[in-house]
Amino acid sequence: MSVNDGGSDFVTRLNEIAASTEDLLDRLLAAAPMPAERARPKRLIESMRYATLGGGKRFRPFLVVESAALFGVPRERSLMAGAALECVHCYSLVHDDLPAMDNDDLRRGRPTAHKAFDEATAILAGDSLLTFAFDIVSRTETHPDPGIRIALVQALARASGLGGMAGGQMLDLAAEGRFAQTPPRLGLAEVEELQAMKTGALLRFGCLSGAIIGEAFQIADDILDVEGDPETVGKATGKDADAHKATAVAVLGVERAKQKLFGLVADAEATLAPFGTRATMLKAAARFVAERRA
Amino acid sequence: MSVNDGGSDFVTRLNEIAASTEDLLDRLLAAAPMPAERARPKRLIESMRYATLGGGKRFRPFLVVESAALFGVPRERSLMAGAALECVHCYSLVHDDLPAMDNDDLRRGRPTAHKAFDEATAILAGDSLLTFAFDIVSRTETHPDPGIRIALVQALARASGLGGMAGGQMLDLAAEGRFAQTPPRLGLAEVEELQAMKTGALLRFGCLSGAIIGEAFQIADDILDVEGDPETVGKATGKDADAHKATAVAVLGVERAKQKLFGLVADAEATLAPFGTRATMLKAAARFVAERRA
Repeated sequence: MSVNDGGSDFVTRLNEIAASTEDLLDRLLAAAPMPAERARPKRLIESMRYATLGGGKRFRPFLVVESAALFGVPRERSLMAGAALECVHCYSLVHDDLPAMDNDDLRRGRPTAHKAFDEATAILAGDSLLTFAFDIVSRTETHPDPGIRIALVQALARASGLGGMAGGQMLDLAAEGRFAQTPPRLGLAEVEELQAMKTGALLRFGCLSGAIIGEAFQIADDILDVEGDPETVGKATGKDADAHKATAVAVLGVERAKQKLFGLVADAEATLAPFGTRATMLKAAARFVAERRA
Repeated sequence: MSVNDGGSDFVTRLNEIAASTEDLLDRLLAAAPMPAERARPKRLIESMRYATLGGGKRFRPFLVVESAALFGVPRERSLMAGAALECVHCYSLVHDDLPAMDNDDLRRGRPTAHKAFDEATAILAGDSLLTFAFDIVSRTETHPDPGIRIALVQALARASGLGGMAGGQMLDLAAEGRFAQTPPRLGLAEVEELQAMKTGALLRFGCLSGAIIGEAFQIADDILDVEGDPETVGKATGKDADAHKATAVAVLGVERAKQKLFGLVADAEATLAPFGTRATMLKAAARFVAERRA
């Protein structure tokens, strides 16, 4: 792809990744592990398929795949993490649309899940999609190294949970005045924090997961264990060496590990340079990985 | 503890583990990672605490801790996986009690979460507890080996999701006749499968997680990769050797790895012998690990 062609290439790539994501989600849901064929909960699976297939820009899988490509990861591999992230996004739409939440009847021009099925089914479909995301991340197809997979699990859980998307949704409901006679007045900084949690956390996971899959994040982690300030890092440092762990630092030494990390990030930045401001988020992700102190 | 004293020791141990679980859940929720103190979603955290703290037999954490103890794992370590499992159990209670599901107003003599708070908060509290379970499992405190932690993630996701608890709940709603004018007539085998998914899957995870944390499960897995029938195992075998993986089989050879596995399981069975029928479930878990063909 010629990156200088501008918008049309971007759209082509977005559509390509959307089609691959749709295909992968379809296959993953069709092959979901079941204790017995006879006990297959058909209505639940139908509702999960309804909530995930047949549309959507798949912008979050795009972020995963493109940020992983910056670190040289082939698309087949990063699509698994992209599909997991999309499951979390789709679960959040199903639950947000519920009568007790935003009470929406339509989504992308179709009836919302609780309208097409019923409320109980929609609640269970959302729960099962969230759970399925972690099943997907846990598989060797996502990455052969269990250390990388568990880093993805932790990052995805934190992006989705009470300190991320779900917490942001709660703050948003509170800001609407749901739980008080007078809605709280939020300042700009507070609105920004709310949005960063409700919407930003999953987008940020999309960008960061590429660096995790591309192993730049792990190298940065190993360096922090040697050089980090325990106060800033938020945990004891120097533990890897004590445990004789097989880290990049142990194998290469601190200076060469740093060179490798900066090399990976420089490659990422060079790849992004021609995209100008459209790549702002991905550039920020690359810099974040290189410069993190915690 | 003298195992021959019978019931009272069992109750003492159950209560001890319940108290430790309560204490750990309290600390984990109080220290949940937050992007900014100012953005802390207080109502959400309160509702999560309401749903998890202040009661419950903690039978699932008991299964985790006791089954891990069979494999020589100290309680401090297995309590983390126990707390994660309890988060999943408590989320399922909150969602099952919702008006669209079983519509219950009371649970353990207290108002259910959506009565004490509201429906939107209860939905988000359940979602966040499910997510938090995977955050807990992902931490090094659960087990230093990322391979063990990711095996726990996968087993927990499968026990909780569409092929486990959530799928069983869906089948149960269908059996009540929610989605058809005439409820389907279930035979005994179908009722048993429904219950095995809805309730059994989390209990089974409780028993199996001990073997995973105690690493017996990993050894069985390594042996299957060498000796298993790809058809039965459901994936290609012989991949570990091709990838030069550091498995028990690679280090010990197949025969000594088997001896180690059977030794671990025999220790487990000897520990359980004095408990008689009260330990039936844990004995079955130990045998399952030793005899699995897939």
